[in-house]
Parts: sequence; structure tokens; C-alpha cells
Amino acid sequence: MSFEVKALYDFDGEPNTAEMSIVAGEILKITRVDVGEGWWEGLNSVGKSGLFPQAYVEKITATASPIVEAQNTSPTKTEEWDDDWDNDTYSEIGQNNNENIYMNDDFSSNYDGGEHHFPDNKGTVSKKSLNRFSSFVKNGGEDYLLGQVKVQVSDDQKIRIIQLDEMSFAWPQANGNYTVQVTSPKKESKLKGLKSYIAYQLTPSFNNIQVSRRYKHFDWLHERLSEKFALLAVPPLPDKQISGRYEGQFIEHRRAQLQEFVDYVCRHPILSRCEVWQHFLTCTEEKLWKQGKRQAEKDQLIGAAFCLCIEAPERTLLPSVSENLESENLPFINRLDNVFKVVLATTTDASKKYKTLYSKESLKIGQNFFALGTSIDNTAIPCKLAQFCKHIGTAYMDIGKLYEQQPMYDWDPLGDKFYLYRGITTSFQGIFTVCKGASNKRKECEKTMSGQVVNEIKSRCDTLTYTAMSELNHFKNERETDLRDALKRHIEQQIAFHQNIVATLQKALVELH
Amino acid sequence: MSFEVKALYDFDGEPNTAEMSIVAGEILKITRVDVGEGWWEGLNSVGKSGLFPQAYVEKITATASPIVEAQNTSPTKTEEWDDDWDNDTYSEIGQNNNENIYMNDDFSSNYDGGEHHFPDNKGTVSKKSLNRFSSFVKNGGEDYLLGQVKVQVSDDQKIRIIQLDEMSFAWPQANGNYTVQVTSPKKESKLKGLKSYIAYQLTPSFNNIQVSRRYKHFDWLHERLSEKFALLAVPPLPDKQISGRYEGQFIEHRRAQLQEFVDYVCRHPILSRCEVWQHFLTCTEEKLWKQGKRQAEKDQLIGAAFCLCIEAPERTLLPSVSENLESENLPFINRLDNVFKVVLATTTDASKKYKTLYSKESLKIGQNFFALGTSIDNTAIPCKLAQFCKHIGTAYMDIGKLYEQQPMYDWDPLGDKFYLYRGITTSFQGIFTVCKGASNKRKECEKTMSGQVVNEIKSRCDTLTYTAMSELNHFKNERETDLRDALKRHIEQQIAFHQNIVATLQKALVELH
Repeated sequence: MSFEVKALYDFDGEPNTAEMSIVAGEILKITRVDVGEGWWEGLNSVGKSGLFPQAYVEKITATASPIVEAQNTSPTKTEEWDDDWDNDTYSEIGQNNNENIYMNDDFSSNYDGGEHHFPDNKGTVSKKSLNRFSSFVKNGGEDYLLGQVKVQVSDDQKIRIIQLDEMSFAWPQANGNYTVQVTSPKKESKLKGLKSYIAYQLTPSFNNIQVSRRYKHFDWLHERLSEKFALLAVPPLPDKQISGRYEGQFIEHRRAQLQEFVDYVCRHPILSRCEVWQHFLTCTEEKLWKQGKRQAEKDQLIGAAFCLCIEAPERTLLPSVSENLESENLPFINRLDNVFKVVLATTTDASKKYKTLYSKESLKIGQNFFALGTSIDNTAIPCKLAQFCKHIGTAYMDIGKLYEQQPMYDWDPLGDKFYLYRGITTSFQGIFTVCKGASNKRKECEKTMSGQVVNEIKSRCDTLTYTAMSELNHFKNERETDLRDALKRHIEQQIAFHQNIVATLQKALVELH
Repeated sequence: MSFEVKALYDFDGEPNTAEMSIVAGEILKITRVDVGEGWWEGLNSVGKSGLFPQAYVEKITATASPIVEAQNTSPTKTEEWDDDWDNDTYSEIGQNNNENIYMNDDFSSNYDGGEHHFPDNKGTVSKKSLNRFSSFVKNGGEDYLLGQVKVQVSDDQKIRIIQLDEMSFAWPQANGNYTVQVTSPKKESKLKGLKSYIAYQLTPSFNNIQVSRRYKHFDWLHERLSEKFALLAVPPLPDKQISGRYEGQFIEHRRAQLQEFVDYVCRHPILSRCEVWQHFLTCTEEKLWKQGKRQAEKDQLIGAAFCLCIEAPERTLLPSVSENLESENLPFINRLDNVFKVVLATTTDASKKYKTLYSKESLKIGQNFFALGTSIDNTAIPCKLAQFCKHIGTAYMDIGKLYEQQPMYDWDPLGDKFYLYRGITTSFQGIFTVCKGASNKRKECEKTMSGQVVNEIKSRCDTLTYTAMSELNHFKNERETDLRDALKRHIEQQIAFHQNIVATLQKALVELH
């Protein structure tokens, strides 16, 4: 594992830590690559050992970009994918996934102990590291800003940002909106039934051709989207972990959550028309699938480099706009992030209480009224009072069943929505970090550089800012249509629920006359 | 305390127990009178010691009837009453009453821990001892059956039992049905505010004159009714014990429970027209009150002796009717007694859950939706989505208040009804014991006596049986009208409750458009 690298940029290590300052051009001997969070350990020419950002150095023999190198240092799921394709097991259902070990204490405090259907900071929400350094540098922000990324962008890859008003920008409307239905999760098997797995059927409205995708295909897709669109808020996938107890219910719930994910992507003007997504939606042939897969994994327009595709407004932004983007938006996003966490816990809790506590309480009440009827029935001639008690009992038992069924119509879909929005707000925290890093780097460059180089850095910094602002605008629109609709449906379903209870009780009352 | 008694009747002591057989005419030296449950301990002429029923013996120097003796052995509340009348304290509210120490384990098992508003076997329900011996003998069953009670009954005291069909008998319809409203529980005070107490206002429909009565007056009344009508099912008073935490709520609930008690008495053809009840309802003058009180306490037509007032059908019943009255009815009554206990626990539990758990849950949900609205509100221009979230939040908070208020409309009144009926079924257990004792005593007498004496004993035994059957018939009618109406009102209130929830949610939904 020992090899030599050349420092690409200066890095000032934090004093009194394991970090080590390096100077551009310096040769370092790498001693560890598994430090994590984008750090490498190495020895400099005077034998001093310390940590420095992996992205600040390049292998002396390397030809590929440092970003690709960085990704190769820890094997990703992607590499296992092809093997797995023919070696599926049912293991994704019912196993703990050790990647998901993060649990926010705040969440637990809002929770009285029970199943977690929407665990906090799990699934893909946790994948995006909030580390300032890794978000900016690992996502290639520095390389992009300094003009180190040279990739040819074709015309059809270009995205022109629309100016709405003085300080409001938006993505271009996507041509040909479409929807995709996620349906029929079913157990499929291979090797004469030895290996089985759950496959979801996806049917895009634009071609009506069904494709079959597993959760791990979604996971691969999500990894590609997150890598490529580090400056967009990619919605989260449902949690990998499961309760294991209600398999049928779990699978149906995961289908509903995947539908949420798919719907959000379909409504997004950029995500919905990107190549890897289209490939995921339409490819039906294994050989073509593998080709598309490899192509997606070789994509160079990932992270901040994706901004090469962006045609931002010509106008140069005031430096303060980039500088203040984070401070002006992060408090709001953090507030939302926190409140989505709270309302997600609320829906999870309500769902659980409806399905268990309230349902059982109503059942017990019903049974006791029924027992009253049975006890009052003393004679051979049917006693009207006894019959009435039994009707009341039946009504309460029926109401118990209504409680058990209800969350799938109101609390669970709303919870899925909050889970999705929580993922979006978490993504924005990462986006702001990249923008903040770019703004800081620009200021740094302005001090040490001059001329056209600085103008280009400024322009690229502006492009990052325009991108973030367009994405913020998209999120705002989503909230005001999609979230609003979800809340409306929830209330409508709650109304229908209580109307059902009224109807059930009225049926019992009629028996009295 | 040592004194001599003469055995009035033969008593066969259970072998291998502390009981001792005695023979009529035998002289016994009493060594203990505090054995309890109507037993005394004594020595016979050969120095053997053992227990025997106190009512089977009479003091050698005594002139009064053994029953009165028996009652004098433990001072009753009655004797304290007059003193208390002018020496009231607020102590009945907020103090534990040591008399109410009975707690049924079965009840607790149905209960998850919380306030007991309808404790099992408390209040006046527990007053009637179920001991076979004491019910029959202590209530004067033996004396009545053997013709030992000689009291003149005036014509207006006579009650003629109606024959409905072959084996169905009923009380005569009372002339002039009336109702009594229990209203305005209020704190009154004496001695310039040093002593305060709660007084309830009673207004009978037949004269519209309000009287003011305290709980302890009800308690005194209940003692008189229970003593006099040992063969009728006197409804129970509400529990003496209180939670102490919600004084206003407790007082209003007690008022509702006293109204239940009063309503049951008013609907009862015998109870509603008895003297002590009329005195309780109408007396407004202190001196007259004391007169009526003393008169009621001197009443000789109490316990089984009350049957001297009964004009039963002429027809002699088959001995099997009396013999089987208990075995044919007690299982049903016991079943009802048990199921009323269960449904009472159900209503208590539901009431508590509505007031606390469900109410708080809905409030919490509402607060979290409201917080979502507050967090989404990012701009100076009011955001429609934020407004909508706040409306949803307000709706759920309002629903929380509905849950808190609801039990007073449905669960609590139904619980009060079940509490009352539980008291009735407990009373019936005592009634059957008296009848069973009488039937056994009759069989005994048939073996040892003959002629007119036996015929009279048979006739009196029949009267007891006719009385119990008439009371059973009344209870059946009560169930089929009063209990049915209570159940109907409960369901109607539940319907109104869920309709209120629907209306509350619809109000929030309207805000969306």
C-alpha cells in the first residue's frame, strides 16, 4: 500500500492535531489510506508523519483525476453489483445493515419505545457526510473552482438556469413530464428457488414498458445520483433496516416509500432527465444494463464538475451573495430539518398507536360490551337488550379494525413524505457546505491570483451559487404543492376515518329501533 | 361483658370447626360478642366452649328482640348523625374513609393503574354482607318466618303484589310518578366560614320545593333503606372515597351519581313511596327533620319484617319454587354482577384514557403540526402552506380538548349506570340468601311442627318468595328500559363526538382553498 504522492495544493494543518501542513509540489510517502472522511496519512521529506486531505495530493504515477482515485480507495457496493446480479439472496430483507448505525438521541426522546419505521438518520439520509472538508473537496468543489476539471459537455447536457426575478432563479421546465408507477413488489427466485428476493415493477408513463428493479438497484442508482448531483437535493431512499416482524406490511410500505422517491425524481427537472435515471427506468436487457452501468460509473461530470453543464445567468453576482448563501439559508433549512424530524416521529408514533394501542383498546371495549350482551341473555326468547349490547360490541370491535387499517391511509404516507423532506433538508446542508467552501476558496484565490484566472474562478463560484439557488427554488415549489397536497390528503383521510366510525356506530344504533 | 343467654332454637354446629351445637332452652355463658358476622362465643353447662349465632339466643334478662340487641352491639352512623348535624366539617371531601378498605383483585387486573372513580366493592355496595347466616338471621328472616314479629300494619302501608302470568309477579304501579332533580352542588359554610361542606339541591317534581342535602344525609338515608328493604335491591350510593385531585370535577361527578341513585329510587314503585324517602325529599325544617329521623330509626317493619306489608297472591307456591329460587336466579345474577364489574372497569379505563392519554396525544400532534407551520414560515409574506399547517395544528389541539371533555357525555354516565347496576346485582345476592334461608328453615319446621303454625310459616315463606320475584321483575324492566336508554345515549354521544372531530378537521381543510 505504500506509494508516493505529490501535493497539489497547500494545506494548513490544524496545530496540535494529527493534521500535517503540506506545500504544493511536495512529495509525500503514503502510510495509511483508511483513515476515513477523505484523510490520508503520510510522511514528508523530513520524516514527519501526519494527516492531510487525500484530494490535495495525487499519485505520482496516476493519470486519472484524484476524485476517481479517492473513490477507488474504499470499495463501493457498485463493484459488487455485477457479481450480485447473478448471485442474489433474500438477505436484504431481515438483516441488520451495519452501515446504518447512526441514531439521533433527540429522536429517541420523542419516542416511547417501539418499532422504528422511519429511523432518523438512516437509509441514504446519512450517506452525505456533513464534514465541511469532505463536502467541498471530496465533491470536487476545489477542482471545479480552480478549473482543474476538463470535460467536454455536449449541447444536450447543458442546463440553462432561468432568472425569475431580481434574486430568484429556477431550473428550466422539463419537456414532457411523466410519472412512474412502482407496483407489485413480489418475491422472485433464482437457481430453482434456492435464492429469492423482492422485485418492484416500475412502469414509466412515457413508454408503458415495465422494468423489474430490486432495492439494491435503487441503492446503486441512489449512489450514482448522489455522487453526480452533490449540488442538488437528491431525495433519500427508504431505510435499509426493517422490523422483520410484518414482512408483508414492510414490503408494501417500502414500495410506497420507493414510489415517493420515484415521484420526487420524476418531478425534478434535472434529475428526471439525467442519463443514469433514464437507464434505470428503461433498460430491460442485461447486456445493455451492464453497459449503461459501467458508463454511469465512469461519468466525469459528477460532484461540482456537474456545474460544467450549467449555463448560469451572465450577470456576475456580488461576492456577498455567494458568501452569505449559507448564513441566509442554513438556519431555515436546519429549522426545517429539525421540525421534519419531529413530525416524522409524530406520524411514526401515531401510526404505531393506531395499529396497536387504540386498535386493541377498541377491540377490548367491544368484547366487553359483547360479553355484557351474552350475560344479559337469560332466556330462550332473544332479549332485545342483549342483542343491542352485542351490536354495540360488534361496532367497537369493527372500530378497532378501522384503527388498525387507518395508518396506511393517513399517518404512514405523511410519514413517508416527512422522511423524504428530511432527506432533502439534510442534502441542502451539504450543498451549502460546498458553496461556502467555494466562496472561501475564491476569496483565497483573489488574494494570491489575478487576471482571467480569477475571473473564471469567480464565474464558476457564481455558477455554484446559481445552482444552489435554483435548487432552493425547486424545493420551495415542491413544498407548496407536493407537501401541501400530502397534508390535505392526510386530513381528508382522517375525516373519512371518523366518518367511518360514525357510520359504524349508527349501524349499531339502528338495531335499537 | 360476661352474661347468660338462653338458646331460642336448636343450632347444629359444623363438626370440626369452632362452632358448637346448642339446643333450644339451654343456658349459655357468653364469653365473646366481638367474633363478628353475627357469631357469639359461649360456654355450655358442661364447660364446652364454641361459637353459635347470636340471633339464636336471647339474654336471660333481656326484653327487647334479639335483632335490636344485635344492632346495638356495633354503633351505627345513625347515632352520630344528630351531633354531626350541627358540627359539620368539610372532612367528607378529601379524606380517606377507613370503612372502604375492600378492593377486589379482579378489578385491579383489568386496570392499568390510575385513578379509581368507580372502585369495586366500595361505597355502599360493600355494606350488604353476603354471609349466608347474617343475611337470613340478621335481616330478621327467621323471626319473620316463625311469626315472632308482631307489628300492626296500616292499610296505606300495604302492598299488593300483582300476578302478571303463571310465574311472573310485579309490584303495583305507583300512583303519581315523579322525578327529582339533583342540582347545584355548592360549598356551604357554618360558624363564619370555619366549617364548610358540599350541599346538593334536590327538587322533587311533585312540589317543586328545593331541599339541601349533604352526602352524609344520603348515607344516613341509604342505611335506613338498606335496613328496611333487605328484600329489595336498594341502589348503591357513590363511593365515599375521592381522588382529591380534581375537586370540581369530583363534585360534579358525585352529583351525577347521586342523580342516578335518586332516579332509580324514584322509578321504584316501593322505594319511591316509602316514608323515610319522602321525609328525605321534602323536609325543610330542622325540628321536623329530627322527628322524622328518629321515627325512621325506630321503624319496626325492617328487614324481613317488611314483608308484613306485602299482600301476596293467595295461591300457595309449590315448595320447589322457594327452594329453587336461588339456584335458578343466582347464576344469572352472579354472571351479571361479574360482567357489570368488567364493563364498569372498561368505562373507567376509557374515561381515563380519553381525559389523559388520547387528549394529550392529540394535543402533542397539534403542537407539532403547528411547529411545522412556524418553521416553514420563512418570509415576511404569509406563506399559505405555513398557514395550513397551523390550521391543522389547531384542529388537532381542538380535538385534544374534545377528548378531554368527552367522557362526561358518554363514558362517565355509562360507568355510573354500570356502578348502579353492579350494586343492584350485589343486593340480589343478599335477597336470595334470605329466601334460601327461609326455604331451609321452612323445611326444618315442617319436620318438627304441624298444623296452622306450619301453614303460616309456609305462607310467610311464599310471601318472601313473591317479594323476591316481584323485585326480580322490576329489575328486568329497569334493564330493558333504563339500561337500554343509557346505552343508546352513550352511542349517540359517541357519534356526536366523532362528528365533532369531522367538523373540526373540515374547518381546517376549508382553509386550504
